[in-house]
Amino acid sequence: MQPIAVSRPAGRTRLAREDIADLARGCAFLGSGGGGDPHATFMEIEALMAAGASVELLDPDALDDDAFVAGCGWIGAPTVELEKIPSGREALQGLRKLEEVAGRPVGAVFPVEIGGANGLAPFALALRSGLPVVDCDGMGRAFPESQMVIFNIRGQRATPAILTDDKGNCVVIESADNLSEERLARAVAVAMGGVCHLIEYSAEGRQIRSNALHGTISEALAIGRGLRLAREGGQDPFGGLFAALRGCRQYGHAGILFEGKIVDLQRETRGGFAVGRAVIAGFAGGGRMEVDFKNENLLARLDGSVRAMVPDIITILDRETADTIVTERLKYGQRVAVIGASAPPALRTPESLAVLGPGAFGLAETYRTVEALNGWCG
Amino acid sequence: MQPIAVSRPAGRTRLAREDIADLARGCAFLGSGGGGDPHATFMEIEALMAAGASVELLDPDALDDDAFVAGCGWIGAPTVELEKIPSGREALQGLRKLEEVAGRPVGAVFPVEIGGANGLAPFALALRSGLPVVDCDGMGRAFPESQMVIFNIRGQRATPAILTDDKGNCVVIESADNLSEERLARAVAVAMGGVCHLIEYSAEGRQIRSNALHGTISEALAIGRGLRLAREGGQDPFGGLFAALRGCRQYGHAGILFEGKIVDLQRETRGGFAVGRAVIAGFAGGGRMEVDFKNENLLARLDGSVRAMVPDIITILDRETADTIVTERLKYGQRVAVIGASAPPALRTPESLAVLGPGAFGLAETYRTVEALNGWCG
Repeated sequence: MQPIAVSRPAGRTRLAREDIADLARGCAFLGSGGGGDPHATFMEIEALMAAGASVELLDPDALDDDAFVAGCGWIGAPTVELEKIPSGREALQGLRKLEEVAGRPVGAVFPVEIGGANGLAPFALALRSGLPVVDCDGMGRAFPESQMVIFNIRGQRATPAILTDDKGNCVVIESADNLSEERLARAVAVAMGGVCHLIEYSAEGRQIRSNALHGTISEALAIGRGLRLAREGGQDPFGGLFAALRGCRQYGHAGILFEGKIVDLQRETRGGFAVGRAVIAGFAGGGRMEVDFKNENLLARLDGSVRAMVPDIITILDRETADTIVTERLKYGQRVAVIGASAPPALRTPESLAVLGPGAFGLAETYRTVEALNGWCG
Repeated sequence: MQPIAVSRPAGRTRLAREDIADLARGCAFLGSGGGGDPHATFMEIEALMAAGASVELLDPDALDDDAFVAGCGWIGAPTVELEKIPSGREALQGLRKLEEVAGRPVGAVFPVEIGGANGLAPFALALRSGLPVVDCDGMGRAFPESQMVIFNIRGQRATPAILTDDKGNCVVIESADNLSEERLARAVAVAMGGVCHLIEYSAEGRQIRSNALHGTISEALAIGRGLRLAREGGQDPFGGLFAALRGCRQYGHAGILFEGKIVDLQRETRGGFAVGRAVIAGFAGGGRMEVDFKNENLLARLDGSVRAMVPDIITILDRETADTIVTERLKYGQRVAVIGASAPPALRTPESLAVLGPGAFGLAETYRTVEALNGWCG
């Protein structure tokens, strides 16, 4: 398939119920195995949209300079998120507290992290608050720690950060630096039962416009739609996925790294993270791929040689349906395809790699792009 | 010695440098082994008072109904507090944040916990802010958890709670209930390096007056003074200590539970607490006393039979000087006297015992008063 051109909002557009299903599929893929399974958030949004409501998607270039814009999502271990159902009040409570702390109304919301459930989180909040969602995010994928975000790399303050839980508890962090914010927010998330809602990196329109990764919501939507349309048209869903990715400004390179069956899985919840490794054996004795993860998939090795590494996207999909299998849903025996895709260019600079590249995860490997490692450079 | 009458402030009095030394001694004793060694806080206050400054001590009965009064102290493991020196800015930063959150100025401060360093904490804050200290506290001793306080037992809200650290980080907790406040504050304290400043149970004058334990600062001062005067007069310092305690409205019963040498000591820092047991062998083969602690000494057994238990005060003193040895300073070989003293009457009600009695620490023993267990009932 040819690359599919992504339609982005010229100023303002509206997303309806069917768009959210495509968006959920795209966010799941971009999560690189993390960000949490979007399913529960998708169901929440479906219920909120049942009466025909839609959400306005706002191009960051259309943001007022002085608009106050709130970053939102969930923090914690996705393994816990699977079982700990939100009350539905967390996000709006956090938003109102932010307005109180900042002394000004919030004009729009955006996802700090497009990957996984967190890419959908602002849509639930938008439906509860009537605010638009800005077509951008701070990661272009999912990352396990709060400071692994372009806003931090570009010098934007993470706090005031507002954490809220299903019991009505609310914690406001004003940190000396963004690394302290991650440390404190993580501790609070663990004390709140392992996962909670987090509002952070809120800023004025001009800052978000200059710092954020633009268009990642539109691109996630296009990725999900490309996959669905191929499947509905009886075509190879992987073909649809790759065509959509290649049409994206933020992604562009994508391909299959390996196909096989999961034959070993180590996974534990440690310090608020889901940490482990999946081992995949090729069909008919065709090698072994090991995928290491910390909430997100970080490193894929084929017979010991690296085929993709963070910040490039490594996502494990069901080999038949091309549905994303997030790390907490990996199981022995699943037949999977491991997909690699190039990270947004802004994540590949030396400044970004210092914060979210292999070294930031304690990996010894020097970063090489997924397209160079796999000879996709055209 | 006869009981020594305690002089309490009629309305307002002022405490000078020499009073603080007596107060530190009394707070250390009332800590029941916990609350942190007052030494570092005492030195901080000495430096602040070097130019002749004094602090106003205010009778709770003289508080304006509508005055906004802030409870302050430190939360964390005293073992960490020994090595982690505060910046000196924590308390004032927290006070200003409380005023911002509450939208009103603070008119006075008080110690949430009279025992240990926390009994002195509001004096450092008073010297930095110019505010008076209210002659009261919430524990009449020290306890390891935030909800073990008369304010909680009497239905007062713990939050907004403000946590601040030496790096300038600030966390505001607004909890659904007081147990959640303890859980969240503890997690934040651990993330802030094991100890941090905490402002909590702030309320209006009328609430503090009706809920607090009155006069505990004056009484701590009298206890420290009684001990010092006996020592300076060449008398038995334990006699001076007991005479002072027997003159207190909040205490009243006191005596030696055991004397001997520390022959075994188990101590670890777990979940933000210093947890362990000291074993003391009597001189010339006179039995063994075991003292269990969780930050504070909780239970003293002589040859297996209970001689004192929480909430009564169990403090280990140097056998020669009668100086308090806090749990984190206990060492093998120290020659000590284990002292028991009766807890404030308000801590001995069934409602209070449910929150801070033996059962609240997982101890199977039914509470009996230290005077009944030792035949001091006169």
